[in-house]
Parts: sequence; structure tokens; C-alpha cells
Amino acid sequence: MEGGVDHLAHERNKAQFDVEEMKIVWAGSRHAFDVSDRMACLVASDPAFKKDNRATLGRKELFNNTLRKAAHAWKRILELRLTDEEAAKLRSYIDEPNFTDLHWGMFVPAIKGQGTEEQQQKWLPLANTMQIIGCYAQTELGHGSNVQGLETTATFDPQTDEFIIHSPTLTSSKWWPGGLGKVSTHAIVYARLITDGQEHGVHGFIVQLRSLDDHLPLPGITIGDIGMKFGNGAYNTMDNGVLRFDHVRIPRDQMMMRVMQVTREGKCVRSSVPRQLIYGTMVFVRQTIVSGASSALSRAVCIATRYSAVRRQFGPQNGGVETQVIDYKTQQNRLFPLLAAAYAFRFVGEWLKWLYTDVNQRLQANDFSTLPEAHACTAGLKSLTTSFTADAIEECRKLCGGHGYLCSSGLPELFAVYVPTCTYEGDNVVLLLQVARFLMKTVSQLGSEKKPVGTTAYMGRVEHLMKCHCSVQKAEDWLNLNTILEAFEARAARMSVAVAQKLARFANPEEGFTELSPNLVEVSVAHCQLIVVSKFIEKLQQDIPGKGVKELLEMLCNIYALNLLHKHQGDFLSTGSITSKQGSLANDQLRSIYSQVRPNAIALVDAFNHTDPYLGSVLGRYDGTVYPKLYEEAWKDPLNDSVVPDGYREYIRPMLNNQLRNARL
Amino acid sequence: MEGGVDHLAHERNKAQFDVEEMKIVWAGSRHAFDVSDRMACLVASDPAFKKDNRATLGRKELFNNTLRKAAHAWKRILELRLTDEEAAKLRSYIDEPNFTDLHWGMFVPAIKGQGTEEQQQKWLPLANTMQIIGCYAQTELGHGSNVQGLETTATFDPQTDEFIIHSPTLTSSKWWPGGLGKVSTHAIVYARLITDGQEHGVHGFIVQLRSLDDHLPLPGITIGDIGMKFGNGAYNTMDNGVLRFDHVRIPRDQMMMRVMQVTREGKCVRSSVPRQLIYGTMVFVRQTIVSGASSALSRAVCIATRYSAVRRQFGPQNGGVETQVIDYKTQQNRLFPLLAAAYAFRFVGEWLKWLYTDVNQRLQANDFSTLPEAHACTAGLKSLTTSFTADAIEECRKLCGGHGYLCSSGLPELFAVYVPTCTYEGDNVVLLLQVARFLMKTVSQLGSEKKPVGTTAYMGRVEHLMKCHCSVQKAEDWLNLNTILEAFEARAARMSVAVAQKLARFANPEEGFTELSPNLVEVSVAHCQLIVVSKFIEKLQQDIPGKGVKELLEMLCNIYALNLLHKHQGDFLSTGSITSKQGSLANDQLRSIYSQVRPNAIALVDAFNHTDPYLGSVLGRYDGTVYPKLYEEAWKDPLNDSVVPDGYREYIRPMLNNQLRNARL
Ligand SMILES: Cc1cc2nc3c(=O)[nH]c(=O)nc-3n(C[C@H](O)[C@H](O)[C@H](O)COP(=O)(O)OP(=O)(O)OC[C@H]3O[C@@H](n4cnc5c(N)ncnc54)[C@H](O)[C@@H]3O)c2cc1C
Ligand SMILES: Cc1cc2nc3c(=O)[nH]c(=O)nc-3n(C[C@H](O)[C@H](O)[C@H](O)COP(=O)(O)OP(=O)(O)OC[C@H]3O[C@@H](n4cnc5c(N)ncnc54)[C@H](O)[C@@H]3O)c2cc1C
Ligand SMILES: [Ca+2]
Repeated sequence: MEGGVDHLAHERNKAQFDVEEMKIVWAGSRHAFDVSDRMACLVASDPAFKKDNRATLGRKELFNNTLRKAAHAWKRILELRLTDEEAAKLRSYIDEPNFTDLHWGMFVPAIKGQGTEEQQQKWLPLANTMQIIGCYAQTELGHGSNVQGLETTATFDPQTDEFIIHSPTLTSSKWWPGGLGKVSTHAIVYARLITDGQEHGVHGFIVQLRSLDDHLPLPGITIGDIGMKFGNGAYNTMDNGVLRFDHVRIPRDQMMMRVMQVTREGKCVRSSVPRQLIYGTMVFVRQTIVSGASSALSRAVCIATRYSAVRRQFGPQNGGVETQVIDYKTQQNRLFPLLAAAYAFRFVGEWLKWLYTDVNQRLQANDFSTLPEAHACTAGLKSLTTSFTADAIEECRKLCGGHGYLCSSGLPELFAVYVPTCTYEGDNVVLLLQVARFLMKTVSQLGSEKKPVGTTAYMGRVEHLMKCHCSVQKAEDWLNLNTILEAFEARAARMSVAVAQKLARFANPEEGFTELSPNLVEVSVAHCQLIVVSKFIEKLQQDIPGKGVKELLEMLCNIYALNLLHKHQGDFLSTGSITSKQGSLANDQLRSIYSQVRPNAIALVDAFNHTDPYLGSVLGRYDGTVYPKLYEEAWKDPLNDSVVPDGYREYIRPMLNNQLRNARL
Repeated sequence: MEGGVDHLAHERNKAQFDVEEMKIVWAGSRHAFDVSDRMACLVASDPAFKKDNRATLGRKELFNNTLRKAAHAWKRILELRLTDEEAAKLRSYIDEPNFTDLHWGMFVPAIKGQGTEEQQQKWLPLANTMQIIGCYAQTELGHGSNVQGLETTATFDPQTDEFIIHSPTLTSSKWWPGGLGKVSTHAIVYARLITDGQEHGVHGFIVQLRSLDDHLPLPGITIGDIGMKFGNGAYNTMDNGVLRFDHVRIPRDQMMMRVMQVTREGKCVRSSVPRQLIYGTMVFVRQTIVSGASSALSRAVCIATRYSAVRRQFGPQNGGVETQVIDYKTQQNRLFPLLAAAYAFRFVGEWLKWLYTDVNQRLQANDFSTLPEAHACTAGLKSLTTSFTADAIEECRKLCGGHGYLCSSGLPELFAVYVPTCTYEGDNVVLLLQVARFLMKTVSQLGSEKKPVGTTAYMGRVEHLMKCHCSVQKAEDWLNLNTILEAFEARAARMSVAVAQKLARFANPEEGFTELSPNLVEVSVAHCQLIVVSKFIEKLQQDIPGKGVKELLEMLCNIYALNLLHKHQGDFLSTGSITSKQGSLANDQLRSIYSQVRPNAIALVDAFNHTDPYLGSVLGRYDGTVYPKLYEEAWKDPLNDSVVPDGYREYIRPMLNNQLRNARL
């Protein structure tokens, strides 16, 4: 990668598998690898995309800099005639949230999903060429998770054939939409539809916000940025905005009418298009979030793993060179499960791509049977993978000791920019409760003719799962992936059934659901962990070429599963899915797999194929030249512009000279 | 607190206990409450201490602003003739890390602990009047946890009666010391002592760094700031520094000689003062960290609790006002254990204050018998409480949904400034390994005449604890604190014994310790959780006046313990300390205590007595006026200075007009 010495060469030489083949597995296909690799290099080699000094910039400079990069990216996309796939990759490697994320990620898909043919024909060409820039304005100051509680109104005025968009209260101010604060010209605004004095639920409307001539907000519209968010740089490159409407009029045909229409007379008419279509988009968005989790996690793990091989601390009693901290079993026990999870999430993300195609094909064929299951499973996986990843990034930071706390480690920003993923697109706890609802329904229908499908198919074997015994007798027995799978199935099924039985004791089922919600959340987690484990195992049943590649993936699968089994031992033991003895053997086996993975650790993170500029971390440098670069970075801080700091004469000297008494501070 | 309406008044009216009395309990004594309250008000009412716009400042402005506040604080301390206790409180309420933390917290105590009488007489008056400003320079770029690995050298030159302080390598650069980068005039520098060509271990030396005339670094000294750290504002108000020595000479009498002296001839002579004295300081510093954990946690919990009572989401099917999110059992299950932990850590911190006095008295009397136990216990409690608090602050942020991600919530900065506590003063994992070493030694000595003391006294009852049975038969039985205590003792003892038995199977004990270190860390955690639970229970055995105060504290103690019991159910079950049935009953009991605590939640966080300025959170405002204030705050962002953003003409308009092709970006 760089010109100098590779301080990690000895680590790379130890690898027992074909890294280049692993890169293909990680990317998903040779084609995907090619695209990623080309786009990553394009960004890494273009000085316009540098992100060096992000942490020290003030808000305005930071934001201005992001606008510049977004414009430059669009210019390059046009010049190089990049495909949509390439353009999306390019944007992700720029690694800086901005308004185009919402434009391409929410505004355009919303028009495609909720707009009629005509609406699509009118708006998509404008959006696809960025002649308009759109955002997604759903959340309000007082209303988030509960979309049905939104207060913004869209009242049909039959006199003029218009909707009047209005913010009746302070809490109805739109609040959070990305790209809204300073950039977007248009928004999909969610509002309560009112015609003829009657409410008809919440719907989406395309509303122009700013003049295309001078960018000023249109009459009746107040917009601004909602202020600083977590961290330096991080999400502060995004103009999350506030928006108020004072009786703003829009033409009737700017309501998104694919599913429901308002006629010239103000009548609401359902179209023949099934409501369920919106689920398609949801599956799509959540699939990208799960893939995003594996990407973010892979970056953090790559940094922590490389630095753990560089960092030495304590060591042989007889003096000599200190021990690499990656050789400590506690370090391995904290780090390797995160490495394994990065791969696990990658494969479950890949499977979700397949699920999305499958759901869409079924929707075309008017087959809605798998929708609830697909919905629950994507909700659960979004929650599980993002919560895990957020915690894991912070753990990677701690794994780097003091130096992880420096912005130059890249980890603080990675964390700060990642954590809202646990909240947006569905609060993670609210999502788990939705999963639980679906699971309880599934349990209640067991034995009926409605057979559990997809990721709940295992529930069909509930009788067996309630009474099966784990066969493990010695540590190595845990290498058997079927044994692991059955333990996870038994745990999930038994927890579901147990809480369903508790629920049944409540006269009012809703009350029971509320009362037992903490338990229900645990059931959902058990179910979702099972999905991830089972998809990893399915992946391993495929043909995977390359020397040692499959063997390493098997070890990672074992680590992922056995670490969970240990962490949630309480679940496994209390449901009798395993015995204490078996739990202890699992732990022994886990430690011995760590030793096998150890020589491959650096190569396993190399397989993510992250460039140094993308990682943006001195600790995670490919060549391991950590200390000279840390030292170099330090001097760039603005505080080092002068040897004596600005406030010396005014604040420090009078203190030292005992002359503060008369100072005006 | 503020003039307007109290939107949380209805919550406060529900409280079933005497808040004013609880404030005294929280503070520790009426005197401590008085001091805290006065100092908090002093800071809150002084506009010079405002911290409004910290998140938007560039590094230089931010730092300059901190220098101003530090000078103002010192001025006020002198003017008001504050006591040391008052001054320390004042500084903590200013709530902004700065060089004086290290001056008072490390430099002065190091001189007291490691300096001879003469050295103290020379340096303390200078330090106490801030005629010199000192920092604590131990960590190096390449060396942290392993202090014995430091590379900086202090070579005695008998010709001139001086030490030559030198940085032989890049990795020997001092790196991290707070206050070093821009402010300190002096430092305690840790270096390898070399006399007559022989090494004599690492010792502390007082080194002047900067001229007292013009603040320039003295000849041979290179100093700078190490650059931006995690978060906005946060720890960036501190000038953590880098420092290199090029053969810098200091007089011999600037080696800290209380324990070991170097004579005029260059001979090393141990003094009669026992080495163990340094442990006293360590106990002291760690005690302040544990108290600090309860303070930080109390702030986060206060914000999340108040906002959870204001925030409404979803609700009764029949329409009407939405449900306060604090009424959701999942929210309670996430929040109330953190509230309980804040109180638990408070009490264990209070107990550590006693321990410090006890240790010191024994040291005076040359009784070192309790030192290893005191050392292990403070190491473990530092680790346990800081790791928990760091995670808990982030959980509180998530409990606030999207709005928690705004800097105006106060939570991002609270997190960013808190997390390094897990790393400094001993990396939390390294500390737990030290605890484990002590526990294994304790187990190995069971049955000998050496009886386990203090927090390990329960090990003396190991025979009973190995075979006792938990007596719980119905949920309410878990209200019995002795039952809880015994379950925690049994779990900790059995885990210790189990891993000790595993260790015994290794031919080489060190190898066994390394191999089993992940298990050992879990044993330490179990032991430390037991300490916290038992100190909470001891607190409840005291006389606690005030209507309902003790009852509420009992509930919190139950919540703290039963939540841990559930989270670590695997430990309790695998050691047979409780049965699955009992585990499930504990969970039932926990939920029912949540309901009892619920009406008292707001009053329980009011008892922390945090002022609004100290909390620095719109979401945590005492009066619950969240939405109007969030809205108001937003407009203060620099991005809102103009309606159309700076980059519009250059970057946005050309994009919208399809004119990027020719733009130079
Ligand atoms: C960085 C960022 C970007 C965003 N971008 C956009 C955007 O582009 N467009 C847009 O419209 N919005 C956007 N949002 C808003 C986001 O979608 C919401 O914040 C999210 O939906 C969560 O809702 P909330 O904030 O109301 O949380 P709340 O629902 O208020 O959550 C508060 C707490 O209540 C709990 N809770 C809520 N309901 C229940 C329940 N029924 N049972 C149990 N517990 C419950 C939650 O678990 C949480 O602990 C963004 C937010 C962020 C942080
Ligand atoms: C904000 C901040 C302020 C600071 N202020 C000061 C100051 O004023 N003065 C000063 O001298 N220093 C200061 N420090 C430095 C601080 O004391 C060190 O960072 C701390 O001691 C941790 O050491 P490290 O960074 O070398 O971590 P490392 O020891 O390198 O830790 C890296 C990883 O290795 C693991 N590890 C290390 N040893 C072992 C082992 N034996 N077994 C298993 N795992 C191991 C750790 O658990 C961690 O996961 C500060 C640091 C920070 C972040
Ligand atoms: Ca900044």
C-alpha cells in the first residue's frame, strides 16, 4: 500500500489461507469486489476527498467542505459515467454523511415505492439528474417512533384543488430530516390527511421547500439546522433540519398516490395496488443497514486488530521484547468475537439481499404469505446487528488503550457517526418488540394449519426442540455446527414457548405483553441470534474455493456462536438447552479456536480490503507504522501553531505571578 | 429552579419519600450537602462559567476559554478564601477538564506521597499558591500499562551532582500527560534511574519544563499538544501533551527521595520509609474515581429519567394523550437499574473513603496486613464502576431516542469526557487481572492460618458457601437482602474455587493464568459485584432518617442486585447458586419493584441536587420544558447564521443547474 517497510509483514506471512480469495468472499462476488476495489482506489487517490483535519474544523467550515466533496463526487460520477452501483460505492467510500444520502437513499426510493406511474415519470428524471434535491421529512419534534402520532396536517381544499400543509403546534415541527436544514429543494413530507373535515391517516406529500432560483425558503416555510450532534466531524457534516409550515399550498397531484388517491372532489379511494408493497422498500432499506453494520464493524475490528499486533505491553519475565497485546487471551476474547461478528453480519446481509428479491417476486405474484415473517426478520436483524456494532466499535476503541481515545485513531468518529443507526429506521427496542409480537403469534398458531415459514421454520419442530438433549461430551464436540444450531434452536424455541405460557396467564393479552416486554425483548434477541448463526452455517454449506478459506470461516462461525452461547449462558441453562458442563466445554473449545485464529488475524482483517485513507486511522495503518505517524499527527493540531498558547499573557502568567486579584477575566 | 411552569410537578407530587432527606443521604452528610450545594450555586450563578457553546468552538477558542475559566476559578477561590474541600467541589462543578485537575490531583499528591520532608517544604508552598503549575508525566508513546517498561532515562552524573533526563527513542516520548501540552511549568517525570552504569528501576523526578519568565520550553525540551480527542468540547479542553528530553540536567535533589535516595556519590540507599506507602495514594485516587463514577452516572440517569417522563410515544388504542415512555416496562428495565447503580456506587464510594482512612492509620502503625486486600478491592471497584458507568451513559443516550444524539442533550459530551476513565489510572482489564491474581492467592491460602480479610472475608466461609442452597420459593423471598447476599457470595466463591481448580491442572502456573485469563476476569467481576451489593446492604443497616427514604433505598438495592443476578444468570446457574426457577422468580420480583419505584423516579433523580447549568441538558431540565428549549437551541448553531448556506453558489447551484462540468472544486 505505502512505500516504506511493512511492520506487519511477519504477521501476514503467518496466514494459513488465501487472502485474495477471502476478499472475494467478503465482497460477495468477484464483480462486487471489482467495483468496491475500483471505487475505493478512486476515492483514496483523489486529494479532493481527503478527510484529514475534520476533527478540528468549526461547524461552518466542516459543512462547507462536505458540500464541496458532494459536488465533486457528483461531477466525477457524471464524468466517469458511473453506474448506480458504482456511484453508491463511491459515495460510501467518501465516508462523510451528507444530503445525497437522503436524496438517493430515501427521497428517490420513496417516489419509486409510493408514487404512481405518472408521479414517477414527472419526478424521477428531475431527481436522477439532481435538478432537484430531496429529503425525507417524517419525524417531528414531539413524534418519532409513533408515526401515527404525527401532527402536521395536509388538508384538502376542493376550491383550489390543493392541499394545505400546516404545522399546528411547536411539537409538530419537522425535526431531524437529513439534508433538510440547508440543502434540499424538496421533501417528502408525512402529514395527516384531512378531507372534508375527516382524518384519513398519515400519508406522504412532495413539497417544494426552497426556490430553485435563489435557494430561499418558499413563503410560509421556516427551515434551519437543528445544531451540533455527537462527536467531531461525524454526523455534523449533515444538515439535519427543522421545518415549519404556515398554511403552505401544494397541488393535489403531489400527494403520493400509489396506494391511496384523493379525487378532485376530495374523496379517498384505495388503488388496486396492495398496501403491502411498502414492505418491499422496508426490507431493502434494512438490508442496507445490516450490510452497513458489517462494514462499520469491519473497520473498527481492522484498526483494533492491527494495532493489537503492533502494541506491546509487559512480557517475558526475563526481559527482552514485550508481548504483543494480541497475544493476551483477554484481548483475544474481546477482539476475536467482534471479528467473527463482522463476517457473520456480512453473510446475513448477503442473505437479506436474496430475501429482498424473493419478497419482491412474491409481491409481483400477489403472494403476501411470507411478508410478516420477512418484516419481522429484517426488523430484528436491523436491531441486533446495529446494537452489537455500536457497542463493538467502542470496545475496539478500548482495546487500543489510551491511544484509541485520540481522533487520529479514527475510532471516536467511527463510533459517533455510527450510533444513531440504533435509533433511526426504527428504535432498536421498539423493533424487538415488533419481532416479539410476531413470534408470539407464531407460537399461538403452532399446531394450526398455518405452518411457520422462513426464519421461523424451526418452530415447526417445536415438539422435538422442547425435549431434545445436547449431545456434547467433550470440548471438540462443539465443533459440530449442527450441534450448535440445535442448541440455538432449542434455546429460542423454549424461550418463546415459556414466555407465551406466561402471557397466557394474563386476562388481558395487551397488558400481559406490556408487563412481560423485557422478557419478550430477550426472546427476540435469542431468535435473531439464531438467524445469524444459521445463515453463517448455510454459507458454509456452499462451495467456497481458496486454500484454507472455508476452514477459517468455520472457525469464525464457531467463535461467533460459542461466544454468544457463553455470554447468554443463562438462557441456555435455564431452558435446559445445554448443561453447565457443556457450557464450560464450549468455553474451553472457544479458547482453543482463538489460538488457531491468532496467526490469521491480520490476514483476516486485510481481507476487508480497506484502504488507509478509508480507515482514516493511524493505529490501523496497513504497514503498522504507528508511532512515527502518531507523533507526526500531533503537531498538526491548531494548538501547536504557537509554542506559547494564546491565553498565556491573560490567564496563565497572572496566575503564576499571583496577580490575578486585579485581572478582569 | 427556573421561573416558569414546572411540567414535572405532577411527577414530583407522586413521590412517597422525603426528597430533602434523600439529598443528605446522597451527599454523604449534611456538611457535604451544604458544601456541594453552595459550590454548585456559585458556579451556576456566575456567567463566567457558562458552557453553552462548547460544542461549536474550534480547538483554540475552546482551549483559550478553558484557560479563562481556570484563572477565574482560582481568582474566586482566593477571593472567597475557599477551603480545599470547597475549592475541589467548585472545580468539579465547572465541569471542564483542565490543567488544574492534574496539578491538584496528581502533582501535589505525588510530592506529598513521594517527596522527603525537605522536598515537601520546598515544593508544596510553590504548588499550593500556583506559583508553579505541575503535571504527572509517566506514560510514553510506546509504554503505558507496563510502567516498568518506560524508556526515559535519568542518569546520575557525579561530576556535577545532577541527573541527565533523556528520551533515547521516539517511543520514549512522554505522551498523554494532562496539562503538559501548553500550560505546566513543572512535571513529575518517571524515568529509569541509572547510576554508575547500573539500572535501579523507575523513579519520579521533578523537572522544570518551561521558563517562569516567558513560558518557553527550557533548553533540550520539546513539548506540544497531542491533538484532538473524542468528542466536541469534552476532553479537548485539556492539553494532553508530548514531551521529549535531549540530555536535560536537573539537580540531584529533584529526584523524589522519600523511599529511595541517591547519595552524592551516586549510591542508591533505601530509606526507612516503607515502600508500601504509595498504596495509600492509590487507594485515595481510586476512591475519587469511584465517587466520580456515581456522579457521572447520576447526571446521565437524571437526564434520561426526566426526559422519559416528558417524552410520550404511542399509547392507548382509543386515542387520547400518548403514554410517557417511562411507563414502558422495557424503558424501566433499562433505566431503573442504572438509577439503582448510581446509588450503589455512591455508597461503595463512601465506604472507600473510610477504607482510605483505615489504610492510612494502619500504615502509620506499620501494619501492612490489609494492604493487598485494599489494593485489590480498589483496583476492582475502579474497573467495575467506570466500565459500567461508561456503558450506562450511552444507554441513557439511547433511552432518549433521536434527541439524545444532539449535543444539547448533554449526553454526547458526558460520554466522550467520561470514557477515558476506563483506561487511565489502570486499564480496566489489566486491573481485573490484578484482582484475579489476589483472589487466586486467597483461595490457595484457604485453610492455612492466613485468614481472608475485609472484602474477602466471605471466603473464610467457603465450605458453607460451596454447599449452601438458596431458600427462595416465591418471588417475594428475593426481598430478603440476606438471601441476595448469600447468593452473590456463593456465586463468587464457587467461581473462584472452580477456576482455581482449573489452574491447578497446569504444570506452569503462569501459563495457566494466561490461558484462563478470560475466566479469571469473570471471577473478578463476580467478586467486585458482591462488594458493591454488600456495601449497599451495610448502608441499609445504618440508621437512615426521613419518611420513606430507607424504603426507597431498599428497593434500589433490590433492583441493583436482582438485575445483576438476571444479567449474569449463567454464573449463578452454572455454579448452582440458584435454580432456574429461582432465577425466574427474581425476574418477576424485579418487575414488581419497578412499579413501586416508578412514582418516585423523578424525585429520586431530584435528590442528586444537580443544577440545570451543571447538567447542561435541554432534555434533563428540572422543569421539563423540553420542546421549546430544544427549538430555541437549534437556532444558535453557526449554520443558521445565514438562511442560504455559504457553499450554495459554489457547490449547490451548479449541481441543480447541471453546470458542474466546468466547475473547479
Ligand atoms: C442522525 C439521525 C438522523 C435522522 N434522519 C431522519 C430523517 O432523515 N428523516 C426523518 O424523518 N427522521 C430522521 N431521524 C429521526 C429518527 O427516525 C427518530 O429519531 C427515530 O425514529 C426514533 O424516534 P424518537 O426519536 O421519537 O425516539 P422515541 O420513540 O421517543 O424513543 C425514546 C425512548 O422511548 C422508547 N420507546 C418508544 N416507544 C416505545 C414503545 N412503544 N415501547 C417501549 N419503548 C418505547 C424507545 O425505546 C426509547 O428508549 C433521524 C434521527 C437521527 C438521530
Ligand atoms: C484522557 C487521558 C488522560 C491521561 N492522562 C495521563 C496523565 O496525566 N499522565 C500520564 O502519565 N498518563 C496519562 N494517560 C495515559 C494512561 O495512563 C494510559 O493510557 C493507561 O495507563 C493505559 O495504558 P496504555 O494506553 O498503554 O494501554 P495499553 O496497555 O497499551 O492497552 C492496550 C490493550 O492491551 C491490553 N493489555 C495491556 N496489558 C495487558 C496484559 N498484561 N494482559 C492483558 N491485556 C493487556 C489492554 O487491556 C488494552 O486492551 C492518560 C490517558 C488518557 C486517555
Ligand atoms: Ca469542533
